[in-house]
Amino acid sequence: MDWNKLGLKIAKEIEKDVMPFFGKKEGAKIVGHSPSGDTTELIDRISEDIVLKHLKPLNVNIVSEEIGTIDNNSKWTVVIDPIDGSFNFTKGIPFFGFCFAVFKNNKPYYGLTYEFLTKSTYEAFAGKGAFLNGEKIKVKKYIEKEALISYYSKKNLNLIGKIKRVRIMGAFGVEMAYVAKGALDGVFDIRAHVRTTDIASSYIICKEAGAIITDENGDELKFDLNATDRYSVIVANDKRLLKMILETIK
Amino acid sequence: MDWNKLGLKIAKEIEKDVMPFFGKKEGAKIVGHSPSGDTTELIDRISEDIVLKHLKPLNVNIVSEEIGTIDNNSKWTVVIDPIDGSFNFTKGIPFFGFCFAVFKNNKPYYGLTYEFLTKSTYEAFAGKGAFLNGEKIKVKKYIEKEALISYYSKKNLNLIGKIKRVRIMGAFGVEMAYVAKGALDGVFDIRAHVRTTDIASSYIICKEAGAIITDENGDELKFDLNATDRYSVIVANDKRLLKMILETIK
Repeated sequence: MDWNKLGLKIAKEIEKDVMPFFGKKEGAKIVGHSPSGDTTELIDRISEDIVLKHLKPLNVNIVSEEIGTIDNNSKWTVVIDPIDGSFNFTKGIPFFGFCFAVFKNNKPYYGLTYEFLTKSTYEAFAGKGAFLNGEKIKVKKYIEKEALISYYSKKNLNLIGKIKRVRIMGAFGVEMAYVAKGALDGVFDIRAHVRTTDIASSYIICKEAGAIITDENGDELKFDLNATDRYSVIVANDKRLLKMILETIK
Repeated sequence: MDWNKLGLKIAKEIEKDVMPFFGKKEGAKIVGHSPSGDTTELIDRISEDIVLKHLKPLNVNIVSEEIGTIDNNSKWTVVIDPIDGSFNFTKGIPFFGFCFAVFKNNKPYYGLTYEFLTKSTYEAFAGKGAFLNGEKIKVKKYIEKEALISYYSKKNLNLIGKIKRVRIMGAFGVEMAYVAKGALDGVFDIRAHVRTTDIASSYIICKEAGAIITDENGDELKFDLNATDRYSVIVANDKRLLKMILETIK
């Protein structure tokens, strides 16, 4: 199976059917509920149908934000979030993407995060490096006084003087890809909010691009391949940034 | 003069010549300094040349982030930021836009804010309502528990529990346009950082869309038509949101 070709094919089909709803209320019409309790909107349903059309015939295991888990006792598991950042999408905020990750015997195999608007394909086969539109990417060199991060917290955090800039863009999987390409130094969510479907593809890409990925205690992040568990996640381009984040959130 | 046609023509020319540099380091090559002390990058210079080509023959006054002020003793003043959010542009972060405002005898006449990536034209003639791609827009109805804002502050602010979501996108003029279309409830910058060139076009659009625009004390915002003064600005869709912001920043 050419997982990269399949992933991009699904992404492009979703793009074609879903982009006409960008910034339009019709796309946000509630048509059901996801396994994790979120409402399912029309654009999620359209995407889900495209995903199932391509993946069901393969008899692989599927973990999707909308569908939940389909266990076919396969060695392959595909983890999908068809539209990471769907709130942004319906509001007309241009930050959202397609997240597609493949695991072989529960181990990272291939990750694809695709941004529709900018037509950016972030991808990585485990052990083979990370790429943006075919060009190798890696995390940015960390310069403390220049640091740019995104973060999500239920506590008020004081980052004044510790970083230079903040961007909070509301699509964690896409923001992780931005760490991989060196646009952000780091991103973290310490609300025990992020699901495997949000992070799986960009996790593989970030690892290959040299990022450090931990839980809220600074221990290596572990996550299960299901659609319901929620995690706190820190992604950083450098140990010094991770240390600063851990001290700030304490 | 059809200011709307002229504004869009300039925007489209800049788009054509500048978009190929999106997310590329070459676009950020330093080629000079702006009147307010910022470095001028290659993409700024390209945009500036296009602006001057169209505006110089008109003998109007020009206020531009890059060019500074050209006073031709005209009743017309055109205030321009060719790329609001140029940091984002060069980093490959998809929030940036073209800001074009026309003042007649120093009074708001026409505002155009154009987002290249999404091809969104926000515009307003003073007194005639605000439009996005030809459809009328207005600020969102404020629901306290659902509020979504962007903000910039040198002080640590505690907004926990006072709003639902934060987006910080790093292009103030574009974020103001998002308030006008109802994607954000409000945006504020209390660093005395924002220039007339950043806000002039979206100021006119926001006013026409029903937004409240004040300084950091809650008094109606006043700004001069020059390229160097810096202001603190609060934009809100509702008096109650403004009140909450003023209390929080005290």
